Amino acid sequence: MSDTDFPYGNPADSDAGLLIRREKLLGKNAPLFYEQPLHLVRGEGVHLYDADGQQYLDVYNNVANVGHCHPRVVQALSTQAATLNIHTRYLHETILEYGENLTKTFADPLSMVMFTCTGSEANDLAMRMARHTTGAKGIICTNETYHGNTAAVDALATLFGGGQPRGENVKSVPFPDGYRPQDNLHGRALCDAYLRAIDQAIAEFEEEGVGFAGVLMCPIFANEAVPSVPAGYLSGVADRVRANNGLLIFDEVQSGFGRTGSMWGYEFVGVQPDIVTLGKPMGNGHPIAGVVASPELVNSFRADVMYFNTFAGNPVSCAVAKAVLEVVHEEKLVQNAEDVGHYLRAGLCDLQQHYDAIGDVRGPGLFIGVELVRDRISKAPAPELAARVINKMKAKHVLISKIGPFDNVLKIRPPIVFSKENADQLLETLDLVLKELALEDGVL
Amino acid sequence: MSDTDFPYGNPADSDAGLLIRREKLLGKNAPLFYEQPLHLVRGEGVHLYDADGQQYLDVYNNVANVGHCHPRVVQALSTQAATLNIHTRYLHETILEYGENLTKTFADPLSMVMFTCTGSEANDLAMRMARHTTGAKGIICTNETYHGNTAAVDALATLFGGGQPRGENVKSVPFPDGYRPQDNLHGRALCDAYLRAIDQAIAEFEEEGVGFAGVLMCPIFANEAVPSVPAGYLSGVADRVRANNGLLIFDEVQSGFGRTGSMWGYEFVGVQPDIVTLGKPMGNGHPIAGVVASPELVNSFRADVMYFNTFAGNPVSCAVAKAVLEVVHEEKLVQNAEDVGHYLRAGLCDLQQHYDAIGDVRGPGLFIGVELVRDRISKAPAPELAARVINKMKAKHVLISKIGPFDNVLKIRPPIVFSKENADQLLETLDLVLKELALEDGVL
Repeated sequence: MSDTDFPYGNPADSDAGLLIRREKLLGKNAPLFYEQPLHLVRGEGVHLYDADGQQYLDVYNNVANVGHCHPRVVQALSTQAATLNIHTRYLHETILEYGENLTKTFADPLSMVMFTCTGSEANDLAMRMARHTTGAKGIICTNETYHGNTAAVDALATLFGGGQPRGENVKSVPFPDGYRPQDNLHGRALCDAYLRAIDQAIAEFEEEGVGFAGVLMCPIFANEAVPSVPAGYLSGVADRVRANNGLLIFDEVQSGFGRTGSMWGYEFVGVQPDIVTLGKPMGNGHPIAGVVASPELVNSFRADVMYFNTFAGNPVSCAVAKAVLEVVHEEKLVQNAEDVGHYLRAGLCDLQQHYDAIGDVRGPGLFIGVELVRDRISKAPAPELAARVINKMKAKHVLISKIGPFDNVLKIRPPIVFSKENADQLLETLDLVLKELALEDGVL
Repeated sequence: MSDTDFPYGNPADSDAGLLIRREKLLGKNAPLFYEQPLHLVRGEGVHLYDADGQQYLDVYNNVANVGHCHPRVVQALSTQAATLNIHTRYLHETILEYGENLTKTFADPLSMVMFTCTGSEANDLAMRMARHTTGAKGIICTNETYHGNTAAVDALATLFGGGQPRGENVKSVPFPDGYRPQDNLHGRALCDAYLRAIDQAIAEFEEEGVGFAGVLMCPIFANEAVPSVPAGYLSGVADRVRANNGLLIFDEVQSGFGRTGSMWGYEFVGVQPDIVTLGKPMGNGHPIAGVVASPELVNSFRADVMYFNTFAGNPVSCAVAKAVLEVVHEEKLVQNAEDVGHYLRAGLCDLQQHYDAIGDVRGPGLFIGVELVRDRISKAPAPELAARVINKMKAKHVLISKIGPFDNVLKIRPPIVFSKENADQLLETLDLVLKELALEDGVL
């Protein structure tokens, strides 16, 4: 490959070497962030450090929820890894201690857990449970979503399918969107319109003989760019699911563990699901995930299906996850997500007063979407601007990303140890970047 | 639950408490080993220790391949976890160093890797790749197998399906069995009979319009109880796969990383596949797994499919797996598996001279099956005897398990740091147990 073929901007010499090796080893389209990718070597709290020793404020990574390399989590990992790591067909205390601590944070009857290693495995298992329990196959998801990478879960990846499911026995419905509402409806009428799509999908599943197994959604619609959801939508979904003998699965891989300012996204939205799936922040980066459900559901599934997962729920994973949960409680991080999230949204709304390009500021707790538009009347999306913003933010050592059906929503989703001082740095940098772009373009 | 309901023998008081908590938290049928389950607290090398401080020789666990809590692996884990853990959309050195070290151990063109967290995810991804590449759906597996727990991979779990696939677009063929040969055939005729089943399955897939995507098999047929495979079978399978434009996927989750006395099972059997899946021992218990394939396959898949796995290939997982691979090489564990496996099989064949119940001793390297039968003429399986043997072995502090279509094959599959002295302990204990059972029953 000649230098002129180089597809990633103008990387530093050493990074160019890494990119060539990476493409040779991992393939041409192994995903990477930023025009000029970031070569990281160290993390601590809300900060990441590159190979040149430069510090970055991490306003993106929701996996390292309690902060990068939290000493207590690292200690729990190291100690247990030096003591015993084994699968769950022997007895071990830590899986019970952690599982009990975890399930105590859920409302009845969500008292059982099936451990997996990844959120994808958790959603795959939840879909198996829903289909097994109902004897039906049809799963409803939204039209701009992604829930993981197994073949079964990939069927729901409408984000990569132009709004359409990528596999069988799945139907997508328009995600609830208060900013670009369907047919320009509002309030109850808008909610009813979105709910009619659920009714219709259920009816079609029944007509086609597929049957209705359930709805799988993220309660905060994280991959749909945390839209403002019409009041009554999720309770309406829950009513329809129950009336049609399906199961409501909430994918809390992103919304769980305090992100929203509530411990669980389902508490934040006030609608209780039948099955909750967990992942990303559960082990602060260590691969542990799981499915939480009622004894009735788990026992009926396990009575018929031998489910075993070699690595899942092992003593090391559970020791790590137990430490993470303890840190979330003891450092009052759920409250911090609520407080700093509120502060940050307020600051972003202030910025919105100065920049017409900011069409909308929204999202729960420390998951905030800032929608960039060409103008606020037409709401025409500004994806190029969003790309320029995140690359300029990175150049100024603040890491964010973008998301949304039009790829124009700034994705602000830091570790939930994020402080108001960190929020100030983000706000000041974003202000500076938007100013620079205004000067460059003579617009904004 | 009253004491009399207690489904697990007569556990120690403290263990009874754990079992009650476990059933309440994980469900009624969360799988457990042994009539009286083992409560483990520590592991070191080939030894595990229970809550009473009792030492057990581990002759079962293939995940802790380089020995429980290997100090070098623990050190690599602890150091990297304290430094940085992040996903693969940033650049990091360790994923490249490990991936390059790993793929160097494969023959051309198997030079690219896609990391996952579990063997199930690896097999799920391999099936997606085969179906994507061929545009066909049909996958062939054996009739007594298991390759993992995702919905797609569960379709292949014929072990739990009475020999039949549990999902669509899968056909099972009889596994090649030199001990209980189909129609009492031998040699070339037996091989041809098994290969005709492959021909037939491919033809049926084509007739049904499903098309033929490939064959997914473990090269040593680990879950089929490591049968003696008729010469020419796997090369015949490979020929048929290629002649019909399918892909040959070898699940090396169990056969890889030195288990067979070769680095890879495909080297041991002398047949090169198109895709290799890796798992269990890759991180010595840390959740890392992957798919190894040619640049042609990986690039063509990645060109069309956005595959990303949050935890997979992270710096911590790769640091761990890199240390594991280094230990395998530096401690010459592949050769050890060959040498000690040979020694152990010889010792088991000696025992066979004294006990008619041992119908067959077989298996590659340190994966050995000892088939127990009522008598050697009828070869009638003796599953109750196998259960008694493994529980008695456990009482004498040696951990083995059982496997096979009739659940009558002792499964001997220790960490590959297993020494000849360890083998002697196993052989002496098995001798003692078989003697005791002979006295108890007046048979054997």
